Amino acid sequence: MRTPGIGPVTYRQLIARFGTSAAALAAVPDLARRGGGKAPPLRSRDDAEREIARVEKLGAKWLAVGQGLYPRLLAELEDAPPLLIAKGDLNLLDRQSVAIVGARNASAAACRFARGLAHDLGQHDLIVISGLARGVDSAAHDGALGTGTIGVIAGGIDVFYPPENEERQKTLWERGLVLAEMPPGTEPRARHFPYRNRIIAGMSSGTVVVEAAPRSGSLITARLAAEAGREVMAVPGSPLDPRAQGCNQLIRDGATLVQNAADVVEAIRPFASQVRSPRAPFEPTLEQLNGHDALATVEELLGPSPVPVDEIIRLSGAPSGAVQLALLELDLAGRLERHAGGKVSLRE
Amino acid sequence: MRTPGIGPVTYRQLIARFGTSAAALAAVPDLARRGGGKAPPLRSRDDAEREIARVEKLGAKWLAVGQGLYPRLLAELEDAPPLLIAKGDLNLLDRQSVAIVGARNASAAACRFARGLAHDLGQHDLIVISGLARGVDSAAHDGALGTGTIGVIAGGIDVFYPPENEERQKTLWERGLVLAEMPPGTEPRARHFPYRNRIIAGMSSGTVVVEAAPRSGSLITARLAAEAGREVMAVPGSPLDPRAQGCNQLIRDGATLVQNAADVVEAIRPFASQVRSPRAPFEPTLEQLNGHDALATVEELLGPSPVPVDEIIRLSGAPSGAVQLALLELDLAGRLERHAGGKVSLRE
Repeated sequence: MRTPGIGPVTYRQLIARFGTSAAALAAVPDLARRGGGKAPPLRSRDDAEREIARVEKLGAKWLAVGQGLYPRLLAELEDAPPLLIAKGDLNLLDRQSVAIVGARNASAAACRFARGLAHDLGQHDLIVISGLARGVDSAAHDGALGTGTIGVIAGGIDVFYPPENEERQKTLWERGLVLAEMPPGTEPRARHFPYRNRIIAGMSSGTVVVEAAPRSGSLITARLAAEAGREVMAVPGSPLDPRAQGCNQLIRDGATLVQNAADVVEAIRPFASQVRSPRAPFEPTLEQLNGHDALATVEELLGPSPVPVDEIIRLSGAPSGAVQLALLELDLAGRLERHAGGKVSLRE
Repeated sequence: MRTPGIGPVTYRQLIARFGTSAAALAAVPDLARRGGGKAPPLRSRDDAEREIARVEKLGAKWLAVGQGLYPRLLAELEDAPPLLIAKGDLNLLDRQSVAIVGARNASAAACRFARGLAHDLGQHDLIVISGLARGVDSAAHDGALGTGTIGVIAGGIDVFYPPENEERQKTLWERGLVLAEMPPGTEPRARHFPYRNRIIAGMSSGTVVVEAAPRSGSLITARLAAEAGREVMAVPGSPLDPRAQGCNQLIRDGATLVQNAADVVEAIRPFASQVRSPRAPFEPTLEQLNGHDALATVEELLGPSPVPVDEIIRLSGAPSGAVQLALLELDLAGRLERHAGGKVSLRE
């Protein structure tokens, strides 16, 4: 999972097909060559062992998708992180949770509201998830500190961003939980935040947006929550307040208007009893694929416009396992682009 | 229509059945007696002529349901006022309109918003209807004064309520339009306001609620608009602002969240091309009813719980005209109660 060019979807497919990471690693160079590219630079065993030792030294734990306390709802995402690094009270992962997200430069009123809402949701036995950012995120964590809160961060588990949240993050290590996808020591970059947001949205029964500018990160989290089939909720505001526009637009687009914890509890009730098991791993074995080399066919069917994998399978006439293998080969050769909604295209 | 105990629904049924008000008036005493009650005290011809003269002297006009410029959408209501008294520019009645209603003690921000919204709706060729009350109503009229606005008042056309709106009402006589259902000189009472609100909601393609406390008159207007099948729109506000609760609840209940005139225009677009003719009058003639006296049957089918008239017709086995006549008789005898949605019950 630390190999450049191998994203969570590819990782998942490799493990599903080859059973173990060792077998997958051994297969990657050949797959990439068959796909018409160079083998990606694999991470060395030493690097991996150094990261594992560092996580251990930090007092953090690994969570593997589909195993142990890895969040069940998160595991449903096609692009669920294969591994998460967790520091704090892992038992919080076993309870229903709601995300509260919003503007970093939120108004004092919005921060007060977020803190109160988080507190009240805690009284309903809900865990509050947020992103340990300034503004609404910080207020949400503070409000739920006594009842259970999880911070999901874009950088490494031991990196404090923004710096003024160092104390808050350390408090969550002790009295809550912090989750990170990136290796320890990673300084968060702009591209990391949408990845972080998918974890927040994916872990939660629903996401409440408290104050959000149009085209802000909070709206991305809301969209990811909607795509995952979770409840999207927004706190309204006056049209005269520019900071309310994102939330009001969300409500116009179908988000549930919430004014208090009772509204949130009502909205996420359908998820309360939902104890879903993780998505079944990808089943076909190599044996089933003998005699079916779909690579040329699949390559011909692909173009620069994203098309659903299902359609490629249907048009190719090949077994779906053979098509998936061909896609993996193109993927590892750096020639495939994976899009939302299970669509793929050829890289130009 | 000025006879105590004869409401708009009964009036409409009498005219539909007897063709003219003279024939209806002549029939009322007999109908009431057959229904088992006393004849209601009919208004004298002198009284009626005095009212007509007074309206004329005030420079006001009569509008009769289904005729001339009587608002077409309003005529669709089962309880549309048979007559309206109008003073001002009657041509405003021939254009699409939107109601803006809200709290009398609205915040300065809400009043500013209502004024701006009314102004912008005017730029979209829409007439703004409101209730000439304090607060949001006044702001809405002011904003649309240059483009067209109609004030619907609960008292007589010549009565200024609240008194400080005297100038505004006179301005609407000159540059807009004022409508009243009650006779000239009537001081508005609490029970008149819901009647007034049904006219506001009934005339309009949609109703925008700007700021409204829970259980306020504006929410009644919104409910009446919904019952009439019109668009209900609400301007959101922060949950921390108690004055926003009514609107936020409306949105939770399905009202369209609007932030500006463009949102309103989009929401009411389905009504723009809707040139509906008034509801067809009630057709059966007395001849058709000969030999069918359904009174005893209908009385037996009725009880203290409201039931749909359609169900009474079905259960009675009598022609619908005969059932309607029996209901009229009970109604005029003061023994029938008419409820929303075409339901009726016997008075205890």
